[in-house]
Amino acid sequence: MSISMYQASAPRFVNTLNNLSGILDKVQAHAEAKKIDPLVLTASRLYPDMFALARQVQIACDTAKGAVARLAGVEVPKHEDTEQTAAELKARIAKTVAFIETFKPAQIDGSEQKDLTIKLGPREVQWKGMQYLLGFALPNFYFHVATAYGILRHNGVEVAKRDFIGNP
Amino acid sequence: MSISMYQASAPRFVNTLNNLSGILDKVQAHAEAKKIDPLVLTASRLYPDMFALARQVQIACDTAKGAVARLAGVEVPKHEDTEQTAAELKARIAKTVAFIETFKPAQIDGSEQKDLTIKLGPREVQWKGMQYLLGFALPNFYFHVATAYGILRHNGVEVAKRDFIGNP
Repeated sequence: MSISMYQASAPRFVNTLNNLSGILDKVQAHAEAKKIDPLVLTASRLYPDMFALARQVQIACDTAKGAVARLAGVEVPKHEDTEQTAAELKARIAKTVAFIETFKPAQIDGSEQKDLTIKLGPREVQWKGMQYLLGFALPNFYFHVATAYGILRHNGVEVAKRDFIGNP
Repeated sequence: MSISMYQASAPRFVNTLNNLSGILDKVQAHAEAKKIDPLVLTASRLYPDMFALARQVQIACDTAKGAVARLAGVEVPKHEDTEQTAAELKARIAKTVAFIETFKPAQIDGSEQKDLTIKLGPREVQWKGMQYLLGFALPNFYFHVATAYGILRHNGVEVAKRDFIGNP
């Protein structure tokens, strides 16, 4: 009895991405109720040199799809970063979830010690599969979803932590 | 080959808590450089009904120590929420890390299917050990650390995501 690499990755990403999609529903509703241009919210950020909400969502998606693809040893699909509205960001999430759901446990299980080379900006790091998943991909993924949530809270959108956690 | 419950919990919490402690070093340095009362930063929040930085750190600590204790079946130690300064918060983190480091893998391993009853405000939920760790404790932990980071970035403290990720 133990945790498989699949259990620690694909269903976790899918669960939180779906929660993030639900959070984005409230962006549209909030903008309509307050008569705010909804692009104000998706372009909002916590500090001038931080990424805006839309980019936080895109990076969360890329972190999730990159993790399952790398662990399974398949090419990471490129999704262009063109989304601006909450509806477009929800579609990006749906596309990411659909990709992750194509993976079967056997494609990802057993990748604990797999050698991975990850590009981080200008440098490349060598990690084992488990180290990459638990120490980089998951913290990074939750970081960007939590930051997206923080941007919305900071702008008065009424989301709550239960929307982030969802149904574990 | 697989991930043990210990591997997915104790060392992950310790790693990120130590990263958070390093981030708090920059709070003190920033306050001194800008001649800001450092309590302004630890009492800062992203929205009036969100928790301030100090409380985010306390909850991150409690989530981590609660997870390892519950999985191991030992009583969760109570740490009083009295910290106000960055130095006091670093001491809270150090106390939490010291507690987590008392656990041996054998105390936590095998808890995947363990029945846990978790109090969430007024209600109690029943979860299995793995579901609790992967679906609640870890996302919640990273949520509060990322929110602490977001509060500091929003206040102009020069921390970077590599400070959050550290050395996985």
